[in-house]
Amino acid sequence: MFLARRFKHCPTCGSPVEYRVPADDNRERATCLSCGAIHYENPINVVGTLPVWGDGPDGQVLLCKRAIEPRYGFWTLPAGFLELGETAAEGAQRETDEEAGAQIALHELYCLLNVVKVGQIHLYFRATLLSPEFNPGPETLEARLFHEHEVPWDEIAFRTVRETLQRFFEDRRLGRPFQLHSADIS
Amino acid sequence: MFLARRFKHCPTCGSPVEYRVPADDNRERATCLSCGAIHYENPINVVGTLPVWGDGPDGQVLLCKRAIEPRYGFWTLPAGFLELGETAAEGAQRETDEEAGAQIALHELYCLLNVVKVGQIHLYFRATLLSPEFNPGPETLEARLFHEHEVPWDEIAFRTVRETLQRFFEDRRLGRPFQLHSADIS
Repeated sequence: MFLARRFKHCPTCGSPVEYRVPADDNRERATCLSCGAIHYENPINVVGTLPVWGDGPDGQVLLCKRAIEPRYGFWTLPAGFLELGETAAEGAQRETDEEAGAQIALHELYCLLNVVKVGQIHLYFRATLLSPEFNPGPETLEARLFHEHEVPWDEIAFRTVRETLQRFFEDRRLGRPFQLHSADIS
Repeated sequence: MFLARRFKHCPTCGSPVEYRVPADDNRERATCLSCGAIHYENPINVVGTLPVWGDGPDGQVLLCKRAIEPRYGFWTLPAGFLELGETAAEGAQRETDEEAGAQIALHELYCLLNVVKVGQIHLYFRATLLSPEFNPGPETLEARLFHEHEVPWDEIAFRTVRETLQRFFEDRRLGRPFQLHSADIS
């Protein structure tokens, strides 16, 4: 598990921790033998958008070419870690601004993807672009629009991005209403 | 913010941390001046179910009377923190088993509720009870079924539980399909 057992010392007092099952619990937690504090590790959320320019089958999707690792040079939907102090929708909007400098109208949650092996849930919202002009931030080499047939499927950065795009194109092709998709990424 | 600034020492090496804005970042993070590690704090997820016994307006909902703080003695839907190693649906099912000992068939995600001030997202799934027999665990004083008119609205433990129940009863009363509700709890 990517994120588990990242505590070696107690964030409260600095003493070494041990992983033990606390009383009234059933999992090992980082437990401080000095001050008694118990520190939990839980999955975190990645929030992003699927921004679309134009209606119908000719509508284009916005992708960002990553200027950072992991997956430098690969294409992604704008997304990043949800921060304290914001809702999932606010976080998705912030990431879209930071990574693409795109102006959007945010719609409902479209994909909820569990990525258990890295301890993450990815939440993608549909969005309508208000302009085809972008102003990418330092984490993005290039932000551009793609028709469905132009999407660089072999250069997509993350499986959750691929799954979100595939579901969108399929729903659009079949004329289905855009409802929440939930899936587990193994 | 409830969960912010909980690091006083570095979980990696135990030295004191300071909250600073790292290079290429725009928020203060717990930064270790000794080993250089940066420690992030992010919202976490609470997952639970809305278990229903019986169809139509006579269908009853399962509530659990809490045997632990906070809100000892108040009624809640079965729910708890999502753990590493499980999907949101798996966590919701586990909590339903642990808190109520209820056998359920889990359905789709029904409510996504942002509780920004405590750094949480609450995810509630609809579920059908397979039996009206329960076997509550140590966190629950009593698990029982309630018709809509019996729900103890003044003794509901959490606002997200109240909001989820209210949406369910309204959707059911109006004969609406059960689709995802998203809301922010201020």
